[in-house]
Amino acid sequence: MGSTWGSQLKVSVFGESHGKGIGVVIDGFPAGFSCDMDFISRELARRAPGQSSLTTGRREEDRPIILSGILENTTTGAPICIMIPNTDTQSKDYEALRAVPRPSHSDYTGKTRYRGHNDIRGGGHFSGRLTAPLVFAGALCKDFLRRKHEIEIGSHIYSVGEAADRAFDLVSIDRELLIRLQQETLPLLDHDAEEKIRGTVEQARKELDSVGGVIECAVVGSAAGIGSPMFHSVESRIASMLYSVPAVKGVEFGLGFALAGMRGSEANDCYQLEDGSVKTKTNCNGGISGGITTGMPIIVRAAIKPTPSIGREQTTLNLETGKEELLRIQGRHDPCIALRAAVVIEAAVAVAMLDLYLEAFGYDAE
Amino acid sequence: MGSTWGSQLKVSVFGESHGKGIGVVIDGFPAGFSCDMDFISRELARRAPGQSSLTTGRREEDRPIILSGILENTTTGAPICIMIPNTDTQSKDYEALRAVPRPSHSDYTGKTRYRGHNDIRGGGHFSGRLTAPLVFAGALCKDFLRRKHEIEIGSHIYSVGEAADRAFDLVSIDRELLIRLQQETLPLLDHDAEEKIRGTVEQARKELDSVGGVIECAVVGSAAGIGSPMFHSVESRIASMLYSVPAVKGVEFGLGFALAGMRGSEANDCYQLEDGSVKTKTNCNGGISGGITTGMPIIVRAAIKPTPSIGREQTTLNLETGKEELLRIQGRHDPCIALRAAVVIEAAVAVAMLDLYLEAFGYDAE
Amino acid sequence: MGSTWGSQLKVSVFGESHGKGIGVVIDGFPAGFSCDMDFISRELARRAPGQSSLTTGRREEDRPIILSGILENTTTGAPICIMIPNTDTQSKDYEALRAVPRPSHSDYTGKTRYRGHNDIRGGGHFSGRLTAPLVFAGALCKDFLRRKHEIEIGSHIYSVGEAADRAFDLVSIDRELLIRLQQETLPLLDHDAEEKIRGTVEQARKELDSVGGVIECAVVGSAAGIGSPMFHSVESRIASMLYSVPAVKGVEFGLGFALAGMRGSEANDCYQLEDGSVKTKTNCNGGISGGITTGMPIIVRAAIKPTPSIGREQTTLNLETGKEELLRIQGRHDPCIALRAAVVIEAAVAVAMLDLYLEAFGYDAE
Amino acid sequence: MGSTWGSQLKVSVFGESHGKGIGVVIDGFPAGFSCDMDFISRELARRAPGQSSLTTGRREEDRPIILSGILENTTTGAPICIMIPNTDTQSKDYEALRAVPRPSHSDYTGKTRYRGHNDIRGGGHFSGRLTAPLVFAGALCKDFLRRKHEIEIGSHIYSVGEAADRAFDLVSIDRELLIRLQQETLPLLDHDAEEKIRGTVEQARKELDSVGGVIECAVVGSAAGIGSPMFHSVESRIASMLYSVPAVKGVEFGLGFALAGMRGSEANDCYQLEDGSVKTKTNCNGGISGGITTGMPIIVRAAIKPTPSIGREQTTLNLETGKEELLRIQGRHDPCIALRAAVVIEAAVAVAMLDLYLEAFGYDAE
Repeated sequence: MGSTWGSQLKVSVFGESHGKGIGVVIDGFPAGFSCDMDFISRELARRAPGQSSLTTGRREEDRPIILSGILENTTTGAPICIMIPNTDTQSKDYEALRAVPRPSHSDYTGKTRYRGHNDIRGGGHFSGRLTAPLVFAGALCKDFLRRKHEIEIGSHIYSVGEAADRAFDLVSIDRELLIRLQQETLPLLDHDAEEKIRGTVEQARKELDSVGGVIECAVVGSAAGIGSPMFHSVESRIASMLYSVPAVKGVEFGLGFALAGMRGSEANDCYQLEDGSVKTKTNCNGGISGGITTGMPIIVRAAIKPTPSIGREQTTLNLETGKEELLRIQGRHDPCIALRAAVVIEAAVAVAMLDLYLEAFGYDAE
Repeated sequence: MGSTWGSQLKVSVFGESHGKGIGVVIDGFPAGFSCDMDFISRELARRAPGQSSLTTGRREEDRPIILSGILENTTTGAPICIMIPNTDTQSKDYEALRAVPRPSHSDYTGKTRYRGHNDIRGGGHFSGRLTAPLVFAGALCKDFLRRKHEIEIGSHIYSVGEAADRAFDLVSIDRELLIRLQQETLPLLDHDAEEKIRGTVEQARKELDSVGGVIECAVVGSAAGIGSPMFHSVESRIASMLYSVPAVKGVEFGLGFALAGMRGSEANDCYQLEDGSVKTKTNCNGGISGGITTGMPIIVRAAIKPTPSIGREQTTLNLETGKEELLRIQGRHDPCIALRAAVVIEAAVAVAMLDLYLEAFGYDAE
Repeated sequence: MGSTWGSQLKVSVFGESHGKGIGVVIDGFPAGFSCDMDFISRELARRAPGQSSLTTGRREEDRPIILSGILENTTTGAPICIMIPNTDTQSKDYEALRAVPRPSHSDYTGKTRYRGHNDIRGGGHFSGRLTAPLVFAGALCKDFLRRKHEIEIGSHIYSVGEAADRAFDLVSIDRELLIRLQQETLPLLDHDAEEKIRGTVEQARKELDSVGGVIECAVVGSAAGIGSPMFHSVESRIASMLYSVPAVKGVEFGLGFALAGMRGSEANDCYQLEDGSVKTKTNCNGGISGGITTGMPIIVRAAIKPTPSIGREQTTLNLETGKEELLRIQGRHDPCIALRAAVVIEAAVAVAMLDLYLEAFGYDAE
Repeated sequence: MGSTWGSQLKVSVFGESHGKGIGVVIDGFPAGFSCDMDFISRELARRAPGQSSLTTGRREEDRPIILSGILENTTTGAPICIMIPNTDTQSKDYEALRAVPRPSHSDYTGKTRYRGHNDIRGGGHFSGRLTAPLVFAGALCKDFLRRKHEIEIGSHIYSVGEAADRAFDLVSIDRELLIRLQQETLPLLDHDAEEKIRGTVEQARKELDSVGGVIECAVVGSAAGIGSPMFHSVESRIASMLYSVPAVKGVEFGLGFALAGMRGSEANDCYQLEDGSVKTKTNCNGGISGGITTGMPIIVRAAIKPTPSIGREQTTLNLETGKEELLRIQGRHDPCIALRAAVVIEAAVAVAMLDLYLEAFGYDAE
């Protein structure tokens, strides 16, 4: 019961990295929505490896096969199921990993949880590859929210290692900017940062190492009054989704941790009227107050840890012999997962937002 | 459906700040547990205002009345319901607030969500006072986890404004230290920090302002292999609970956002054998890998924004006239909510942990 | 996690028969609804014992105390919590029951489930008294559905032992008829049946025995297209609620079990136009087809077993000695629970219907 | 959100009758279980059409393709996903059905619910064919419960039209009997009933009509103390599952509706000691008291309505013209769905039972 999420929109992700395929069942998506399959493909392509010289050389083609719920590109109201076949899965000797868990991977915890029966080839169900079905679900939700509610969801690489982009202007984010970001291989607000980021990643790769990063995501156009206090706060809902993305270790809204260092007089968002609607002059709370949307842009940042698979030698424990061993992970790995994470973070946020909208407005969210 | 949480342990919080009372129903708590009512009272006292010279002068006595589920101090297996009567509720003219929402409070979002019908006196259901029932639930869970599973949960004030305590040693945290922290009015690892923290709060108060802070919480003694991948990761479960605590705007595990600035070779936690059990040499991941516990201390930090109620003059919008107005919030308010938040954060974590344990081990979690 | 139910409307029932009180938390009820407290009181009175000469002589006054969620008779949107104090609870020597479980009561199963720690006084959390909070919740939902959606929910005693009322006309049920039935102590369609029913109950009582019965409930005015296929069918939702009412052992929709004996040509409900709207000529399916409402009256029948508490001598097992014993249950008991069950069945159906409406139409179900 | 079910074991069914395929995701199934694939195939074969001369002549081969969660016949702990490709789907002119809904089918309600966008070919997601994935899930659960907990689940055709088998002996049901029943094309306790049942079905078919029936299902070997009071009673859980099976219109436990006609002195199940364990002398309550298992056989009966698709001429409404029309449904249909329903009912019960066991005993249900 770890791979099913949602209240009105249930998302159930399945698959293992080296099994027949991976996929997702999306139950509760409104009927009659004409899907933009090109958009969905583009979103999947954003996540796929091999997009840029900075990511892993592996090539996967994430071609989703629609098993149900979409007929002639239109949702039927039945659960949508798509399957992405696994190709390129040369299952070398993964057995060794059972005894010698890779540091900061799920090898040891997965083994403990599933008593040694989990499929460890390629990370099994823990693989980052499992984010592909989530991106499919997210693309569908994003498309719906855009065309039915004029909500746009986009993100950029906020930082990689020590190299930083500038932050979103929390108060005013242009829809076109978010769409532009969705189309970039290296989504950045300030392209002057690109060189420094590229350098940071290249350096890590050269040193057989990896590096972490932060994604900043914005939701523009949400109505005010969505969400609930306490356990079903918009923050709770979005965070619980984001923390299901492998490698996310931090989530903050608005100014987040920086708020802890601020005074109330700086942090409070004062109301004003703007073109006849209620807005706040600042948006330190990231569009959510009391767990409920204010109508301002929703801002969320997710910290992505460095890829745990590195080429450098590491020590680990051989669980069979009880002795420490030196481990050198072979193969091509992303030196920085964060570079490919933007579309995944957006997807997680989009799924959470549509779930909230279905609760607020009913089956059809109209 | 915002105030009910949980999978095997359902927690349903009710109440409004100026109504008859507030409370909680806890469904699914194991039967036959002999509760330490003194411990529960002490935990409630930790949250109550008036503990220190730094908190609000208001006095509330949070005396829980047990309505069901506990007989002669022993849980019966039926839903546990407690009610804390509201006293000291001079409902002055709160009506003004309907038209003039306080910045960064729930006044405007609550009004929008509930179409003007929410009880705004004292913040209604959005009041920080609603954390008292959560503390009751958390104290019960903490007590159970301690006595049945030798799990200890404790926290300290990590920072207030610019003033910082030192961080937990992520690898080795003493049970006794956590118990000691639970007993302190100003729980700190390094008492040299106390003066600076006091100074920061006093200064804010003097300037009719408020200040934020960060709480760092540790869970020591958890078994390895608890939790699930993806949507039900330990991070997802704990974060969704923490984000239900009013004023929390950031949550991170292990080194959290700092991981984004690190190399994989630094961030990876390598395995070793220690006294015959599998441990990691470092604990940058905060005791969770692949969404599942490693058996190392679980480390989580929550950013608490500055109290939005400040004595200083602020501008806001009069929703009726459509004109901006000056607002000066009267009354006694905590200059720094973070100071009272430690026990609330621990409670949220404790409830999430027991829910996870019930899933792992069944009804009685034994 | 046995006493919490619902998707968008969460109902959490608490209490034990001889504890401080019983009650319910209702989370997700629309804000701004002005409650008809007189109606709610009348509904509670319908369930209370002592209404008729046929029920137990015990007197309980089910006066709900509103703890939260209703201000000046209007719902605030926050969780509604009411508490009904327990009075008249002379806890005699219930301890004997621990060793000597009453046949067809929860004594043995409750003891096994809760390892001997459940509060057995008066049945504890298993007591039929726990239906009072459910009636409160149901009355609120019924009132809302009536005034906002012109839905009326009513029921009658379909049979008691061998004595039978006539069945509802499945196709056409008058709203006024349902309201009339809500006001009767012995709700019957055909008052000629009253004497036979009274006789059956009196005879059982005289013989220190009890007797079962069937309640037939109708929902008139529901929109077509409510509900979902498969696991969230309207039948699944209503049945799961009804089976939480103690003593219910059978639930059927439309002609129910009789359909099993019929031909398709008789059982099929053919469509026609009636005053411009789509109706069926017959309604053998009880207003639900494919799990979704047709717009015709929803018809459900619940079988209520005979009161297990009877004055007659029965054999049972002494769990301590391992010997069989003779048991004679003292005290005043209803010879026929079914007589008081109508309002409880209606309440269960009303809660399920509002939950379905909230899913279909959103937070406010408007 | 209609096609996902469960608390610890989440079952998510997808597919439409004439789409690419149908299937199920099963999340939370214990890891390390070595599946008996032959048993699963036999169970799927029991449901498949064409088994007996009494069922539809259509031939479908329900060959599940395992997409994830099972590796070398052993469960990995990851979500299990299987897909059954749709073959033999000559999609004739189903468009006509949009305008002319078949009586007692989901055509009209599905159209209303999904605003005309549901896939109506072959019934789409409402098709009885969707029970095949449920049978897969059920077979897996049945196999687990048998080998890990010595629980056996079996059923027989209790009645077809007026023709009846004899009922289970509620107190003592042999495991071998249940296994024998699983292997019969026409599972009956009393084979003298076979001729009458065959005659009833043949007669209906000859008259271009259909007929209903009742399935009686038993669970033998369940521990006592499983389940919870109120909303999560064993009856609630099983009934909510059973009512997701298309055509089920009644569900009763133990003597069910017959209890309504009985006296308490007849209906009460008195305790005794049998081979050192607590048993009841009778089992009118069908193994469940207070919502919790007694350890006696769990007995549940489901009423299956006659196949709504009949060859006979029926009237219906043309939704476009607003005129009544004569309708004659073409094609080969089962004259009695009940004949193929036994394995589906068992599957629904098995899934519910494993979910209950996981709650009681934890992740691995051991």
